[in-house]
Amino acid sequence: MATMYDTLLQLPLFQGICREDLTQILGKVKLHFLKYEAESSIVRDRDVCNKLLFLLNGEVLSTHSFKKDFVFMEYIPTPYLIEPYSLFGIDVRYKASYIAHTNVDVLEVEKSFVISELLNYEIFRFNYINIISNRAQTLHTRLLKSIPDTAENKIIYFLSLHSTFPSGKKLLRMKMNDLAEHLNETRLNISKALNHFEEKGWVELRRKEIIIPAMEQFFMD
Amino acid sequence: MATMYDTLLQLPLFQGICREDLTQILGKVKLHFLKYEAESSIVRDRDVCNKLLFLLNGEVLSTHSFKKDFVFMEYIPTPYLIEPYSLFGIDVRYKASYIAHTNVDVLEVEKSFVISELLNYEIFRFNYINIISNRAQTLHTRLLKSIPDTAENKIIYFLSLHSTFPSGKKLLRMKMNDLAEHLNETRLNISKALNHFEEKGWVELRRKEIIIPAMEQFFMD
Repeated sequence: MATMYDTLLQLPLFQGICREDLTQILGKVKLHFLKYEAESSIVRDRDVCNKLLFLLNGEVLSTHSFKKDFVFMEYIPTPYLIEPYSLFGIDVRYKASYIAHTNVDVLEVEKSFVISELLNYEIFRFNYINIISNRAQTLHTRLLKSIPDTAENKIIYFLSLHSTFPSGKKLLRMKMNDLAEHLNETRLNISKALNHFEEKGWVELRRKEIIIPAMEQFFMD
Repeated sequence: MATMYDTLLQLPLFQGICREDLTQILGKVKLHFLKYEAESSIVRDRDVCNKLLFLLNGEVLSTHSFKKDFVFMEYIPTPYLIEPYSLFGIDVRYKASYIAHTNVDVLEVEKSFVISELLNYEIFRFNYINIISNRAQTLHTRLLKSIPDTAENKIIYFLSLHSTFPSGKKLLRMKMNDLAEHLNETRLNISKALNHFEEKGWVELRRKEIIIPAMEQFFMD
C-alpha cells in the first residue's frame, strides 16, 4: 500500500492531497494498473477519451499524423498524464496516438470516477483546472509567433509548435516533399537546411526519417 | 430577483444549474454588477486575472498587441465570459485588453468565491472544465495548419489564428510593413492582396487600419 501512495503522490493531479483524502479515494475509486509491452499501442488518435491515463514508468512515443506518411513523433518521459484536456469539452477524442516504446506501466481511472469522486476533492480539482489552463496558455503563446523567414527557421518553428516538451528526442517520419509543402518552402531549401542541421549534429537524416536527438540543441546558440 | 436569475442562467457557466442551487449561490457569493461607459477600459493586457468577468450587455472590443502600432482588435458579442483560462494555471494574467465599445454591463465574481463556493457545484464545475478544455482543443486545431503559400492566404491565416469568433467584425491597426514582416511576405504582395480583398468588399482600407466588416465573407467562396 505504501508504494501505491507514493506512486499516486508523484502524479501532478494528486500533488498536495493529504494522506487521509488519498485513503478515502483509494477506498472508493477503482484504479486499474495495466502493463503495456514494448511496441504495443496504448491509445489511438481519434479514440474516444473516456478515462484518465497516467503513464507511470517506461518510455512512450506520442505520434501525430498530418497525413499518411507524414508523422511527428515525440518521446514522452514518465510520469505523465495523457491529454487531460480531451476528457471534457466538445471533442472528447485523443489528439494523438501513444505507443509503448519500452515496457510501460499505466494507471487508468474511468471518467465516471473522475466525475463522481475525484473532482469532489478540492486539491484534485485545482490541479486539474490548473493543468488544462496551462495547456490553453501554452498553446496561445505559440499562436503569437510570426511566420518564419528561412527554411531553417520554418523547420524549428514546426518542431516547437508541435512538441509537448521543449527538449528531448523527436522524430519526423515523412517524405521531404510533404515537409516542404507543409512549410510552404522548396524541397531544395528544406534539404539544404536539414543538411546544415546534420553538420551541426542537431539532426540525423535517414531515409524518410529525421531524428532530432535533443531538441534543446536548437536553442543553445 | 427574477431578472437576476434569468441573467445568470443565460451565462454558459451557470447553464443547467437548478433554481435551488442558484438561490443558494446568490445567498453566499458576492456578485458585483458594474457599468462601463463607452470607450472605457474593462481589462488591460497583462493585468492579473483574479476574478471572473461576465460581459452581460453591450459590445466589447478585445485588443491584442503584437508590438506598438500593430494591434488586432475583435468585436465581442455578449453575453461572454472573459478568459476563464487566465484565472488558473501558471500565467494568471489576461492575454488581451478589453474595452467597452458601447455602454457595457459586467458581472464580477472574485476568484476567492469561485474557489470557495462556485466550484463546489458539480454543474458549474463541469461547465468550467468544459469551457477550458474547448479552448485548448480549439487552439490545438489551429496549430495543425500548414504555413500558407500566398500573401492572401497568409492574411486569412493570421486573422483566423487570432480570432476568438470565426465570424463578425475585426480590425487591424498597423503599418503595412509590420504586417508584411510578421507574415514574412513583401510589402508589395501584402498591399496587392489587401487591394484585391477591398475590391471584393471583404476589407476596408484606411490609413494604418484595415477593417474586416464580416470575417465570414472570406470563407463563403
